[in-house]
Amino acid sequence: MKIDGKPHRTIWLEDNGWSVGIIDQTKLPHAFVAISLRNVGEAAHAIRSMQVRGAPLIGATAAHAVALAMREDSSDDALQKAIAFLAEQRPTAINLRWALEEMRAALTPLAPDQRVAAAYSRAAAICEDDVESCRRIGVNGLKLIADIAQRKGGKPVQILTHCNAGWLACVDWGTATSPIYHAFDAGIPVHVWVDETRPRNQGAALTAFELGHHGVPHTIVADNAGGHLMQRGDVDLVIVGTDRVSANGDVANKIGTYLKALAACDNNVPFYVALPYSTIDWSVASGAHIPIEERAADEVLRMSGRLAGGAVVEVEIAAPGSPAANPAFDITPARLVTGLITERGVTGASSEGLNSLYPERKLTSVA
Amino acid sequence: MKIDGKPHRTIWLEDNGWSVGIIDQTKLPHAFVAISLRNVGEAAHAIRSMQVRGAPLIGATAAHAVALAMREDSSDDALQKAIAFLAEQRPTAINLRWALEEMRAALTPLAPDQRVAAAYSRAAAICEDDVESCRRIGVNGLKLIADIAQRKGGKPVQILTHCNAGWLACVDWGTATSPIYHAFDAGIPVHVWVDETRPRNQGAALTAFELGHHGVPHTIVADNAGGHLMQRGDVDLVIVGTDRVSANGDVANKIGTYLKALAACDNNVPFYVALPYSTIDWSVASGAHIPIEERAADEVLRMSGRLAGGAVVEVEIAAPGSPAANPAFDITPARLVTGLITERGVTGASSEGLNSLYPERKLTSVA
Repeated sequence: MKIDGKPHRTIWLEDNGWSVGIIDQTKLPHAFVAISLRNVGEAAHAIRSMQVRGAPLIGATAAHAVALAMREDSSDDALQKAIAFLAEQRPTAINLRWALEEMRAALTPLAPDQRVAAAYSRAAAICEDDVESCRRIGVNGLKLIADIAQRKGGKPVQILTHCNAGWLACVDWGTATSPIYHAFDAGIPVHVWVDETRPRNQGAALTAFELGHHGVPHTIVADNAGGHLMQRGDVDLVIVGTDRVSANGDVANKIGTYLKALAACDNNVPFYVALPYSTIDWSVASGAHIPIEERAADEVLRMSGRLAGGAVVEVEIAAPGSPAANPAFDITPARLVTGLITERGVTGASSEGLNSLYPERKLTSVA
Repeated sequence: MKIDGKPHRTIWLEDNGWSVGIIDQTKLPHAFVAISLRNVGEAAHAIRSMQVRGAPLIGATAAHAVALAMREDSSDDALQKAIAFLAEQRPTAINLRWALEEMRAALTPLAPDQRVAAAYSRAAAICEDDVESCRRIGVNGLKLIADIAQRKGGKPVQILTHCNAGWLACVDWGTATSPIYHAFDAGIPVHVWVDETRPRNQGAALTAFELGHHGVPHTIVADNAGGHLMQRGDVDLVIVGTDRVSANGDVANKIGTYLKALAACDNNVPFYVALPYSTIDWSVASGAHIPIEERAADEVLRMSGRLAGGAVVEVEIAAPGSPAANPAFDITPARLVTGLITERGVTGASSEGLNSLYPERKLTSVA
């Protein structure tokens, strides 16, 4: 999508042909800063510290991290070690492990001296595949928005989203935002309620940033507000992303997603989850088995922001001495999900729904 | 309750016998600052700017504000004007109007030269009444906590609360916190999950502050986390306060309360609302008729906090240029409320439940 009118991706090979450029998302929305990842350690740090975040982008970064590791040592041992090291950086998003298994399958059969080139090629293919998957998610989700628009006779379709499942979470387009961008680009009037998404504020910091740069009308609200907006009839549709969907259609996503799904259900608002196939974990029967990351208390107790003069500072916002807990994801049961929007179409959040779209089940290769 | 080991109230008559002391709650938790209200304008500002907040404390402050107004002009006209002016400072909490009607009823029949003394006396009675109501709410709610404690065999009773319905929201004890303080003081092990309560962070700033000063174990969580905590069985009981209960038992409370009630219902967690009789609006049939205050967007887009050196600053936290909406309350339908904890006992959130506790219905005098 566009930044200051110019198309941009979230990850790219730099001009030297080997280092990997990313947007340091911990600096957004206060500064738009690109940084270089030059080795597997820097890439792992970028994933862990959330310089890159969002399930698809975590996968794309991990794939490039394997390529960076291969540059230094392309032995079998180094390959397995790099994959094991990268896999433990974040626990919930399955795309991390998916991308690493893609890399393992592509590189293990090769002679070590062929692995560097093959790794870069595979990482690039994973990125292109993600862009195409997200584009198709947009085309498929666009129909849902267009149907509502037709009913509303020119009034904007009101869409609520949680966290950032935008192009900043992917390589381009986004998952939850792709139908929105497609609708906006097609001239359908839309307005997005952006949950600020405490504690890391990915909604207010990232989703608002990218919607604003693309020109999509939106309004930030506290995470607490979504239920009230639905009660008063101001939400036509919820679309969120996901970090992992289990084989029965349960959805792991940013903490608080479950609360919005409950409110949507209570108010008959359709609740959709947008995802590429790489986010489906066929090996996990239900959401109860998905690990939930616990992050640092400081993310709850502190916040960074801009002073009037523009300087970015971190402040303590809570009562001194009070502890905090910070579970980063929750599970939305499939029963609360109206449908899954994937690159292959829209389907029910159930094993039947998933099986109907993916009859081959356990996908192991990049399309 | 106690601050640094010394008993404290939220509002008091100062030593000069006429000005009114309050804690400036907009400065908490970063600084504990008492300020003087010397006229009706300063009192109205304190209510509007949320230097005082919480339904019972808003009422107690408004009562004192009428006394301050009478000092300057105790004519019929001045009395009616002061009441009308004060009533419009905040729309949702019914205690504001309740206290003003108490003052109107007490002062209107009197000769103007008797009104100043009567107003101070009435305002003091409203405060004492609130303290006693809150104490009884604690005694009545204590039984619910004690019952759960018995089942848990020594493990702490896990209580989630939203916003601040603590002693800082009342004159002393609090509504939602009173059963917690009573349980803690009785030696029952309790642990409180404190919703931070964006956008104004009354949970992290006020509830954590007062629980910490009283020594009650607690943990701050983002508002998004409560559903997940309930899903994993870490919440035994939810207790919140309220700004207005309609005659059918619907509950207006801080934005986000409805989401926690939905999660409690979905996870079979009891959801209680604690309130004094002054928070019941017998004139309103259901929550649909309760006005919901819309507050400034800046409360969502900015946040104040302490720098490492201790200075308190305000920072912008969202994408520059993005707008925000800030509805301050929502309605929790009576069907999601397990029970109402009042000074008279625990009852169902329904017209039958309320009528059984208050057979005389429309209360017009301070007990």
